[in-house]
Amino acid sequence: MKKGYIHIYTGDGKGKTTAALGLALRASGHGFSVYIGQFMKGQHYGELSSLDLIPNITIKQFGDPGCFRKEDVTPKHIDQAHKGLKEFGTIMKKGLYDIVVMDEICVAIWFGLISESQVIDLMQSKPENIELILTGRKATQNLINYADLVTEMKEIKHYYKSLGILARKGFEN
Amino acid sequence: MKKGYIHIYTGDGKGKTTAALGLALRASGHGFSVYIGQFMKGQHYGELSSLDLIPNITIKQFGDPGCFRKEDVTPKHIDQAHKGLKEFGTIMKKGLYDIVVMDEICVAIWFGLISESQVIDLMQSKPENIELILTGRKATQNLINYADLVTEMKEIKHYYKSLGILARKGFEN
Repeated sequence: MKKGYIHIYTGDGKGKTTAALGLALRASGHGFSVYIGQFMKGQHYGELSSLDLIPNITIKQFGDPGCFRKEDVTPKHIDQAHKGLKEFGTIMKKGLYDIVVMDEICVAIWFGLISESQVIDLMQSKPENIELILTGRKATQNLINYADLVTEMKEIKHYYKSLGILARKGFEN
Repeated sequence: MKKGYIHIYTGDGKGKTTAALGLALRASGHGFSVYIGQFMKGQHYGELSSLDLIPNITIKQFGDPGCFRKEDVTPKHIDQAHKGLKEFGTIMKKGLYDIVVMDEICVAIWFGLISESQVIDLMQSKPENIELILTGRKATQNLINYADLVTEMKEIKHYYKSLGILARKGFEN
């Protein structure tokens, strides 16, 4: 049985979720089964339509469009995030997939929707063979300590800041 | 007509090609057409099989498996990279796709397979509406100056270094 590692993609730059999606795409091409659970997301992202075409990737959302800042958090958002946690708990317990992506889970901790210790528990309960990917800004030091592979997406240059442009459909969501 | 930007994903960390793949996946889900040309790659990467399932993404390779270090470069590799440049030139001229990915093009410059000025020419010839993504370690300052959005994938922690493990099929390729 192969050993699965724990990856984290964090930092303020672009490419965290997309790197996880690309990794899922690549792994699925080798016949691995992939589960992607997206915290704090409920809007229609482009990946939902495309991933529908790939049989061995499952994607699910645990959030809704209205939670972009800490002050937006409602009990509903907390409830949704806990549904995600529960689902991931079941997946870890049953070892259901080869690759598991917890998208934006670092932000869900940062927003206080779930606790760091709940996520560390999930990481610790990971069956040996599962490859686990966590994404999101503000990964805590404890999460980093527990991961095998951590990449920071660092923003070097961004046109939004210079030109004041909003997120564009099809590229940022 | 929307304005397309130029992105670069560079740095020594993981996630550069996969971020471009994920962006392609996301954009294709919104109905955009995507062309991905991979420099210095000829081996079977997992994305080739998965992307076959998505009708509006085209992927092509301009390289072969034997070129991992500067000292491996042969006239054949240079020739393959130039075929890639030519194809991208045609795409830019005709404005054939919405999103164009030049995967590992920064490394192709670094290895001396193509010149920086040839790539700057391509960037300058980009039709207004095309979104252009360049990936690869060692992006030059001139490329960065010319891009709208630059992300450095920075390696914070890597199990290869601590455990001496080789790339694993399905995750690194």
